[in-house]
This record gives sequence, structure tokens and C-alpha cells, in this order.
Amino acid sequence: MLSELVKNELKRIVGTANAAFAREELLCYSYDATNTLYPPDAVVFVKSAEEVSLILKMANSEGFPVIPRGAGSGFSGGSLPVEGGVVISTERMNGIIEIDTENLTAVVEPGVVLWEFQQEVEKKGLFYPPDPSSLRFSTLGGNIAECAGGPRAVKYGVTKDYVLGLEVVLPTGEIINTGVRTAKGVVGYDLTKLMVGSEGTLGVVTKATLKLVPLPEATRTLLAVFPDLKDAATAVSGIIKAKVIPSTLELIDGVSLKCVEEYAKAGLPEAEAVLLIEVDGSREGVVKDSEVVERICMEYGAQSVKSATGKDEVRDLWKARRAISASLFRVKPNKINEDVVVPRASIPELIGGVREIADRLNLTIACFGHAGDGNIHVNVMYDKTNPCEAKAAEDAVTEVFKLTVELKGTISGEHGVGVSKARYLSLELKPEAIEAMKRIKAAFDPNGILNPGKIFPKKAAEEGAYMVGAEAASGVPATGL
Amino acid sequence: MLSELVKNELKRIVGTANAAFAREELLCYSYDATNTLYPPDAVVFVKSAEEVSLILKMANSEGFPVIPRGAGSGFSGGSLPVEGGVVISTERMNGIIEIDTENLTAVVEPGVVLWEFQQEVEKKGLFYPPDPSSLRFSTLGGNIAECAGGPRAVKYGVTKDYVLGLEVVLPTGEIINTGVRTAKGVVGYDLTKLMVGSEGTLGVVTKATLKLVPLPEATRTLLAVFPDLKDAATAVSGIIKAKVIPSTLELIDGVSLKCVEEYAKAGLPEAEAVLLIEVDGSREGVVKDSEVVERICMEYGAQSVKSATGKDEVRDLWKARRAISASLFRVKPNKINEDVVVPRASIPELIGGVREIADRLNLTIACFGHAGDGNIHVNVMYDKTNPCEAKAAEDAVTEVFKLTVELKGTISGEHGVGVSKARYLSLELKPEAIEAMKRIKAAFDPNGILNPGKIFPKKAAEEGAYMVGAEAASGVPATGL
Repeated sequence: MLSELVKNELKRIVGTANAAFAREELLCYSYDATNTLYPPDAVVFVKSAEEVSLILKMANSEGFPVIPRGAGSGFSGGSLPVEGGVVISTERMNGIIEIDTENLTAVVEPGVVLWEFQQEVEKKGLFYPPDPSSLRFSTLGGNIAECAGGPRAVKYGVTKDYVLGLEVVLPTGEIINTGVRTAKGVVGYDLTKLMVGSEGTLGVVTKATLKLVPLPEATRTLLAVFPDLKDAATAVSGIIKAKVIPSTLELIDGVSLKCVEEYAKAGLPEAEAVLLIEVDGSREGVVKDSEVVERICMEYGAQSVKSATGKDEVRDLWKARRAISASLFRVKPNKINEDVVVPRASIPELIGGVREIADRLNLTIACFGHAGDGNIHVNVMYDKTNPCEAKAAEDAVTEVFKLTVELKGTISGEHGVGVSKARYLSLELKPEAIEAMKRIKAAFDPNGILNPGKIFPKKAAEEGAYMVGAEAASGVPATGL
Repeated sequence: MLSELVKNELKRIVGTANAAFAREELLCYSYDATNTLYPPDAVVFVKSAEEVSLILKMANSEGFPVIPRGAGSGFSGGSLPVEGGVVISTERMNGIIEIDTENLTAVVEPGVVLWEFQQEVEKKGLFYPPDPSSLRFSTLGGNIAECAGGPRAVKYGVTKDYVLGLEVVLPTGEIINTGVRTAKGVVGYDLTKLMVGSEGTLGVVTKATLKLVPLPEATRTLLAVFPDLKDAATAVSGIIKAKVIPSTLELIDGVSLKCVEEYAKAGLPEAEAVLLIEVDGSREGVVKDSEVVERICMEYGAQSVKSATGKDEVRDLWKARRAISASLFRVKPNKINEDVVVPRASIPELIGGVREIADRLNLTIACFGHAGDGNIHVNVMYDKTNPCEAKAAEDAVTEVFKLTVELKGTISGEHGVGVSKARYLSLELKPEAIEAMKRIKAAFDPNGILNPGKIFPKKAAEEGAYMVGAEAASGVPATGL
């Protein structure tokens, strides 16, 4: 609970119109895509680094938590006020300050919606590749905090690869500039890449310098249909071994296919698996690469490989791909959505293992995702009103994580740890590594006021006070405002 | 000075054959490419993370500095034992543990020489792009510590972009694994990218998982000759604006051209400037990109653009490029070699400013380097036996740094801060940012035993006890062993 003094000071800092304390307003900032509710005590809409700095300084002196928030579309609880406190919403800091076509850089405020930024950039013939499924509503600030990825990561990398420099407010209120506006720089420690993906626990990003690349000349989308899931998974490695790096290389299993086709009617085939592949580059390169991809898929057991003709067909295919997550609620009302990554060549083993776990625990588990970089979204479907099934679902997640780590993988490729995965951290990281990370947190945030309860296991998380990585049961991802 | 007890313990840890204490042996580990001498008290040749851990634990309890060392080819003093202590040489940890052609990764020990690694990788049709000029002798461990770049950074990025995960011994002796073996991962803070480029101050790398890419099918080398330096610099931006990203895009000014031609006789033209450009990719793509590059160079005022025919010509051109640094000693016996970076479009302004500084201070300053990513090696030539000229040279460096920062650049793109640039740190970074970095250092190394006196300005550095970024006056870069 905030004192009246603190509330008045918040109003003074951001202006009365930019501070909210009413219960109905707070509710709008109390959830993310994990379908859990943690109301804050206040929401402030900041407009500058200076405002953020004043709030953080007060948080240290008065002892209340501060939670930075983009669009609230995260899958791991990164923006949830699990201990109450003041939500700093960056949604009104939404200016694209500069798109520099000579240096291929852009300077943006954190509240810019990814999709809008991409549209502006593409108008100038440039390209900002990160493309999480939330791209129509998630913000660049949130993308930076979580190091968002997406299908194009296989060729283009993730958000971290595009952040050159930041203006960040440290938890203790100092405003610093990290990184460079240039292609490279090695002066001091790399605070930029430390901030990206730190889930809002080390600082509040108030400005970012992003790297852009030339927009590829041509793109071609292919759909390869496989009668066998493992063959499709093996073909993924086959394509890369043939030295073609597609711009996207997505695997969709039979369960997902069936659900999304019933839901979105995009004309997807009934099959055990498909690979949805996009190649981009020069016009000639795209033709050549498509031929290689087609040949490899057929060699690895595809029954057909079809090239999408026309923009509409491509759009429908991607619409279907993005609708999978929501469509799965046709199977069961609840879902645990994890985004494990394994070395590409181990995808067949991962998929096989997941199938075995699903059969043994009598669950439906749908697998789809960014196979090209080994990142598979494993979706455990269940009904939470059935305690037996809920227990089985949680057991399945633990087993999937253990299998992932055995296969030298990581338990999260894109979604982050947040609160959802905090209890599993020690499956992947040795205590000494966790300790080193905690030392960084303590060095930056000695009073633990910035986004507390995230990443590192806390008592509350261990007790399982909230559901693991669960998505909005409604079928519509919760997207904040 | 080390006690007999410490010496005996060092011998016990690494074996008598792997510990050196004799003056003549220590001398071999007392310098790097900055042409300054700081003898250590002992050199140990480690063979495992466990050995490194035991030494670091003892360093904390007994209070002596530990300095990790690769090949000692650094340009900023990163491997110099400026406060004495124990050098940990990783040169005997030189195994390539694995090259995984399915997952496009490699696992290496830190002592592997970059060139040897690249040869092994290329045998398998794969590619590890970082290519500092020291590539024939520098080690992967040193490359990681300094975040080495090279001409290919314009297209392929720097060492940091290829390090997926590390085994690191922390200053307090804990052995941790950072990062992943997969294409992505967002579990916890990014300790990997924090370690890369931290100049051996945050940990000792004992193993690295590196990312590989497919070897490009074809390469073409072009030499564009310009009667005007500024035109050449402007053409650099022109090429990128035309959406061609060459694999290298090097600028060489007239001073450098003259020196290297007298020295290496590679058939370089006498001109105000040349651009040495390489494009790579598919056979068709290379032809197309070369045509664009040629057209743009002519538009921007080139007098000729020539495509190198045959492997020998290409090799000679690159040999000449790599010989520039050494050949400059024909002008003057001493040299300060800085590697500033500015946004690409500001290169003409930087070059113009450097010319003005050179004229005003009556110095010869040669500029060459990786113009494609804005990284120019500015070489201030002088004779240190002439105190007036030595003073002018130091003033010139300070002015070049100030100009760089004004142009929104960074004072080091590749070489690091080390001891050479420590005194200039505050030109680029705000006190709050330096403070944040120091807090990380203190969190990892509370007793300050690992590579002390580096990055952060210390009294000794401020007093100018050693020359700024000076290279070996002999003309042969000091390369360690």
C-alpha cells in the first residue's frame, strides 16, 4: 500500500492525468499473457527518463516495488506486479525519434509498437527483423526487456542482435547511456546486452538505438507436408546442412494442424507435420534456395512441397501459423506453453520424448515453432478443473524441461524466466551461475525495488502460487492495453 | 613478489614443468603489442578450469594479481601484468574439442590459434568470420577477452556475435557455464556477452562454444582508386545505401598507400585513397553485387575500379592491407594506433577533422581500416626522442578522441580500453555508467585480483606511465609466443 504522500508525489512527477489509482484502472495493468492477476497499487504513464529516475529514487527511499510494463503481452509474468507497487507504463513514450537510412540505425522510445515501427522502417526500404507472434501489439521496450525472438530468428537473430545502445534508468535512479550508435564498440563492459533480456530487473529502458538491415529483395514461402513428424524434424537439420539458411523454418505438428485448421480454415493439410519455410534474398538467390529446400524435403520424406503463390496465400499461411496458439484451446480449456530450445539436430529426439511423455501421462501435447533454431513451443493441454490432469500437466512440464537440459538445450528461447520459470532455473543453471547473476542484481538494485520476484526463485514462486506459463484460458491472449 | 609457499603451491597445481619463475622466461610474458614492459612474478601454463580455479582461490587468500594471457598481441595492454603477479597463459589449452556440422557450432579451448581454427572449420565447408589482423597468431581466448573484430565485421559482426556459451572461472574461483549451445536462450542474465570483451577482468575463459556459418560459395575482391580521400569516404555510405553489404569494405589513405607500397610492393596505386572491397555470397549474387559496387564507386568519383583476377592477386592485396600497420614505421619510428568508430556517414567528417589536426600539429597521421562499419585506424606517427613531437602526438590522440565522441562515435571498436585508453574512458562514458561497470567488477572480483589496472582509470594510468596505444617501434608487432 502506498501512502498518500507517495501518491501525491507520483502525481506531481508525472502529472495528475498520468497517474492512476482507481481499482478499475489498476486491474487493466494487473495481468499479462500468463492469465494471472496481480493488481498494482498505482500505474503511472511516464514521458521521460527524468520522470522514471525520480520515481525510482523515491521507490528506494520509501521502499515500494516498481514494475516496468510495455504492452503486457509476455508469457512468463515479467510485467506482473507480484508484490504490488507502482507500474511504470511506457505506452505514452511512443515516438520514433529517427530512422537513419545512411547509417542503418533508428532511435526509438520504448512504447513504440513493434508492428508500427516495422511499417515505418519498411517504407524506407529497410528491415527490422525480430517478429514475435505478439508483433501487432507488443512494444519495443517489452521486446528489449524480454529479448523477443520470432520465426525469423533462424536467419536474422533475436532482439539483442539489433540493439546497439540504450538510455536506461538504473534501479537507483541514475540515467545512463549504454553502447554505441556505431556498428561496433568495445569501451567498457557491455551493459547494453546485459540489459536486453534482463526482464526489467536491472533498469528501465527509456530510449533505444536499433540496428536496421536492408529489406530483402524477394521472399518465397514453401509448405512441405510430411506423413511422419520425425522425418519433418530431421529435414530441418538437412536443410541447414545443405547450407541454406531460410529466413523462417517453422515446424507444425499434427495436433496443432488439426486445431488451427478447424479454427482458422487456412487450407492447411491434414498431416502428421508440415514445415513452413520462407527463404529471402536476391530474386535469383530465392529461386535457387527454394529448389534446394524442396529437394531436401523430398529426400527426407515429404509427400509434397508447395510454393505459395501470391500475397494472399502467404498471408493466410502466416495468419494460420500465428493462430495456432489460440486455436489449441479447442482441445482443452487450459494450456501450459513452454518454449524450449535444443540443438537443431536434437529436435527429433525432443519431439519423440515429448510424444512419449504425452502418451504416458495421457495428455495432449502440441508442438510447433521455430524448428530452424531448435526452438519448439511445447503446449501441454489440460483442464484445470480436473486436479488429476492439472497435476499431470505440471509433471509433463518438468519432464520436458529435464529432457531439454539433457539434450543440451535451454528451457526458454524467447519467453524469459519471469515468475513462470523461476522455480526451474536450477534445472539449467548451476548454483554458482545463479549466484553470479544475483550479485549483478544486488550491485544494480541493492534494495530490490525493481521488478521484484522475477527470474530468481522466491518462496512464493516455489510454492506455486500461480500457474506455470499458463496462457489466457479464453483463447484470446491477454495483451494489456 | 610471491612467497616461496605460493610458488610451491603454483608448481603443485600446474606441475613443475608448467610453472616459470626465471627472469628470462618472465620477460617473454611481460609485453604485448603496445611496446611496454611489465614483468610478472610467475607464469603458469594451465591445462584445465580446475587449475585456474585453484590459482584464483589462492590469489584471493594470498593477495596477488592474476593476469590471463593468450598470444599477447593486444593493442591496449589487456594482457600486461601492470601490477606484477601471476600470468595464466592458456597457450597449452589448445584443443578443438568439437566441430558440429549439424548444429553449426564448435567447442574450443582458449589457446587455439584463430587461423588454425578457421582452417579446420573451412575444411568442413563452414566459416568462422572474425578476422583481426593478428589472426595468424592470436588465440580464440584473447579474441574473446577483447571482442576481436576485423575487416569482415561490416557484414559478419565481431567475436561477440559468434560466442554462444562459455566455461569461465570467476575471479573468486567458481567454475560456471554461461550461455547455451543453441541458437538462442533467455534464461537469466547474459553472462556470456558480459564476459566477451571484458578484457580478462571478470573471469578466465577455459572453454567456448562458438557459432559457425556456412562458408560462402564465392568471393570477389575489388580495388577502387580515388583521387580524393573524402570522395572515397563518402562512397562507403553510398555502397551501403545501395543495399549491398560487402564482406569487407576497407579504406586506405594516401599516406598508408605510399608506405605499404614501398614496403610490400604489392602493386598498389599511388593515389589519395583506395577502397578495398570484397563481396561474397552465391556466384550470381557476387557478380551482381560487384556491378553495383563498381557503379557506385564511379558515381562517387573513383578514377578506376578493378576486380582482382586470380587467387594470387587477392592474396597480395590482403597481404598489403595487413602490412600497412608495420610499414608506417618508414615514416617515423613511433606510432600511436587508435581504432575509433563513427557512424558510417560521418567518416568524411572524421577524416577531414583528422587531416586538420595533423596539419595544425605538423604531424603525419595515416588513416586506414574498416570504413564499412565506421571503424578507422588512426595512426599518429612521431619520434619519441623529440619531446615536442611526442607531446603533439599525445595531443593529437586526445583531439581525435574528442572529435570521435562529438560525431557520436566510440573511442575503440576493437582494441579495447586496457591500460592505453583508461585515461580517456570519461570522454565517452558518463560517470554513472563507469560507476555501474565498477559495481559489476566489484561484485565479481571483490578483492580486485583479476587483471588489475585495466579499463578503469587508476593513478598509474593517469600519470601516463606508459605510452598511449603505442605499437612496437621495431615495425614488427610484438606477438608474445
